[in-house]
Amino acid sequence: MKSIAILFDYFSFFLRDKTLGDEIRKLKEGKADKDVVKERVNIMLAKKKQLGTTDEKPGKFVLKTAKGTRDYGPAQSALRDSVLQDVVKTFKKYGAEKIDTPVFELRDVLMGKYGEEGGKLVYDLQDQGGELLSLRYDLTVPFARYLAMNKITNITRYQIARVYRRDQPVMSRGRYREFYQCDFDIAGQYDLMYPEAECLGIVNALLTKLEIGEFFINLNHRFILEGMFAVSGISPKDFKTICSSVDKLDKTPWAEVEEEMIKEKFLKKEQTEKLGQLVRFRELNSGLSNLELLEKMSQLPELGQNDKFKKGAEELKVLIGFLEVDGVNSVRFEPSLARGLDYYTGAIYEAVAPKALEGTAAEKSEDTAGQPVGVGSVAAGGRYDGLVNMFDAKMKVPCCGVSFGIERLFAIMEARQKNTIRTTETKVYVASAQKNLAMERRKLLKTLRDADIESEMSLKANPKLLTQFQYAEERRIPFVVLIGERELQEGIVKLRNVVSREEKDVPLDSLVATIREALAAL
Amino acid sequence: MKSIAILFDYFSFFLRDKTLGDEIRKLKEGKADKDVVKERVNIMLAKKKQLGTTDEKPGKFVLKTAKGTRDYGPAQSALRDSVLQDVVKTFKKYGAEKIDTPVFELRDVLMGKYGEEGGKLVYDLQDQGGELLSLRYDLTVPFARYLAMNKITNITRYQIARVYRRDQPVMSRGRYREFYQCDFDIAGQYDLMYPEAECLGIVNALLTKLEIGEFFINLNHRFILEGMFAVSGISPKDFKTICSSVDKLDKTPWAEVEEEMIKEKFLKKEQTEKLGQLVRFRELNSGLSNLELLEKMSQLPELGQNDKFKKGAEELKVLIGFLEVDGVNSVRFEPSLARGLDYYTGAIYEAVAPKALEGTAAEKSEDTAGQPVGVGSVAAGGRYDGLVNMFDAKMKVPCCGVSFGIERLFAIMEARQKNTIRTTETKVYVASAQKNLAMERRKLLKTLRDADIESEMSLKANPKLLTQFQYAEERRIPFVVLIGERELQEGIVKLRNVVSREEKDVPLDSLVATIREALAAL
Repeated sequence: MKSIAILFDYFSFFLRDKTLGDEIRKLKEGKADKDVVKERVNIMLAKKKQLGTTDEKPGKFVLKTAKGTRDYGPAQSALRDSVLQDVVKTFKKYGAEKIDTPVFELRDVLMGKYGEEGGKLVYDLQDQGGELLSLRYDLTVPFARYLAMNKITNITRYQIARVYRRDQPVMSRGRYREFYQCDFDIAGQYDLMYPEAECLGIVNALLTKLEIGEFFINLNHRFILEGMFAVSGISPKDFKTICSSVDKLDKTPWAEVEEEMIKEKFLKKEQTEKLGQLVRFRELNSGLSNLELLEKMSQLPELGQNDKFKKGAEELKVLIGFLEVDGVNSVRFEPSLARGLDYYTGAIYEAVAPKALEGTAAEKSEDTAGQPVGVGSVAAGGRYDGLVNMFDAKMKVPCCGVSFGIERLFAIMEARQKNTIRTTETKVYVASAQKNLAMERRKLLKTLRDADIESEMSLKANPKLLTQFQYAEERRIPFVVLIGERELQEGIVKLRNVVSREEKDVPLDSLVATIREALAAL
Repeated sequence: MKSIAILFDYFSFFLRDKTLGDEIRKLKEGKADKDVVKERVNIMLAKKKQLGTTDEKPGKFVLKTAKGTRDYGPAQSALRDSVLQDVVKTFKKYGAEKIDTPVFELRDVLMGKYGEEGGKLVYDLQDQGGELLSLRYDLTVPFARYLAMNKITNITRYQIARVYRRDQPVMSRGRYREFYQCDFDIAGQYDLMYPEAECLGIVNALLTKLEIGEFFINLNHRFILEGMFAVSGISPKDFKTICSSVDKLDKTPWAEVEEEMIKEKFLKKEQTEKLGQLVRFRELNSGLSNLELLEKMSQLPELGQNDKFKKGAEELKVLIGFLEVDGVNSVRFEPSLARGLDYYTGAIYEAVAPKALEGTAAEKSEDTAGQPVGVGSVAAGGRYDGLVNMFDAKMKVPCCGVSFGIERLFAIMEARQKNTIRTTETKVYVASAQKNLAMERRKLLKTLRDADIESEMSLKANPKLLTQFQYAEERRIPFVVLIGERELQEGIVKLRNVVSREEKDVPLDSLVATIREALAAL
């Protein structure tokens, strides 16, 4: 058995290797992305190494992270933590519980929703004997699996975790293969639009809190799309593909979208003309409020009689009524919003912050394709009543939720921050003015830490005074406690304000109290 | 090419299938672990399905998490978060920064340290074209890779993240294939034992804070082990294997360990006798302090002259001196501690909490093998000066750190907790006494949430009063704000203390202030 496997591998290597070699040469001649070339070369080297045909010295590592992933150093971690703190606070303000699920799932569980298309982007684990596993692609499918497996019909939960997609990474635009998702969902049988209002309330509250500048939440409904398509004479079987064209209207002019629908999706001009009047209804009727737009659409002869449209419009009117009382003013009814409709069954929504990067260094940067680095959706969601049912035919658990584009929010917050964030919470640095005071520093450090005051000292026995001061300044530690021979004899220490450089003597036995006061006054 | 691959797969299936089938029958006849049987059956079914030879209906999912993994529901998540909050606070008290690394690394990066043996436990990602990747096995290797890749020679960092090992999971003992690690490390050129004292200080501070009951930190030094082995006539090439025997002394009687070393590792009786006198030195000299033990060992004729031992003992004496000033009294010099010595180069330590589960329900539970569910080490670490160097031959970055057995700590905290932890932070539940007050509830909810008070209401239009009260009680929400027709007319609400069931009228315009006071008084 083993010898066949090796033979097979060897054969496959030569075939692949030739292809790869050619490909690499081609890539190098053209203006291919450096990362692509590097990756291809690495595949070849790895293959050669496996067969013992490489000259590479053992123990020599390629010092990089996997393609599409990155490390978060202290500054990035601190920023992300501060954003996530706001996120979690907001979720908790709305009464959410937290759950966590494994990073990989049985492959069958994940493949249920995405089928062939999404499957290509899924990272599979190698079959090492045992179950066939894949890394999670989002948090929604594991959530539905969790509900079905535990027969939970009722929960308002959030989950913040990394997900994995073998996409072409566009790192300059914040698109990675490993990235955080941040989901809030309400599962349960509730009254019409109550859960949706909670989801939109959370989006509004969080984006307001993060101060990312002006933002809008576009709102639409599956039934409204279905109604518009029906009166335009578009067949239900084309629903998904036409949705994907229509959804481009936020970035692409109508003429282009129309051309695509005619040339690639074989709609007739009369169909697209009719559809265009409807999906562009907000654009063509600027200045109208959400309710006025819905009202005016309802008065259109055909559309107004379409049952799907009527039901969708009624539901959105209820939601808009709730949001008015809730003070959620950022919502815009947008009939061209058509995203995620392979599983959304009711209202859908998406938040955009078109000016979030305005005035920042990131505003004018371009990605590798020369496109401006824009900011797409920062949150998206909707109602999906069928997902849990897919896992357990006996369970009907209506769900509705929102997923924050937390990586985009991190990028926005990073671009907009005025001061570099501190990476530690150290409040006091314990320093000594002369040599041989290491044990005295230890004692002081213990006193401070015992009082739960974040404190550090140099880990050298005899550090220079200037070095200690510099460290405190660079790290923006607010206070230095300084000890010297004189202070030691008098039972005092010097408390130095690092910014103002003011110093004062403080008796040892009131040091903790004095520092607490000084910290409170900062 | 494709047809060859399919043929090969088909051939391999028949060979494997027969083996598997036989194996499953054998397993079922014997008393094999149910999970093992299930897993084997699943492999066969998956293979059959792939070849289209299964009768299983499409769309039927196995509703489970992958072997060795689990979900964390709201109660577990809340408990873990509260423990992690203490962990992070402690790390920050010691001035640590946070970093984060990807969940998978280039396979070559991970394989550097573990070689063949550890490699078996590593989850590999399937080769889907591109790099060869594996899930991280611990946080230390990615940390060293991060330092080498970014040429960082100086950082005190923590990282809390999940790691992956294809071990035989023993779920009843808290051993999973996916689990959190929680590491604190100091990288940099510092003075002797300063970093070690910080690490032990953190262990002492955190275990004290968590109130897990009595704990000890066993302390030893690589050089002390090397010295003891040398004077016992044990060859350096046997260092690792004899270490693994000696390290069992915390759970296994000396006679058994000695037998293993003689029968399986071919030591002579005179060697083991000599070694036994040394590694059991604490046991044979009970009542002596750490310094007294080191002193007494130093006076042994041969050992006292051994350079390795002398250096190790000198270093530990310095450390013990620091810890005395730091008030870290839980440290015990334990010459039989011999763990992790494939990469530790200096001091090593390990914290144990033998009575942590005493008096809890978990105390007497047994694992599947009938062994008592004990609590092993809750933290372990040491000095490893060579790891970064493996990734970059030009870099010398001395490191020293500690990894908390955070899953064990979670289990201990779960077993010891007196009251179930709350899973939300909701402070107020907004309820209505009559029908048709849905909009009034919304308005109240908005007022409270705008004031950053965590609040909920029923997501039904006309919920029953009793149902609302019950929800608040079950969820241990401290207050209910109740509105009815009368209250509405008078511009007041009823504020109900859920525990005492006391109610009082509060004017609407002082509601927020009243609730804040009431919350502060809880």
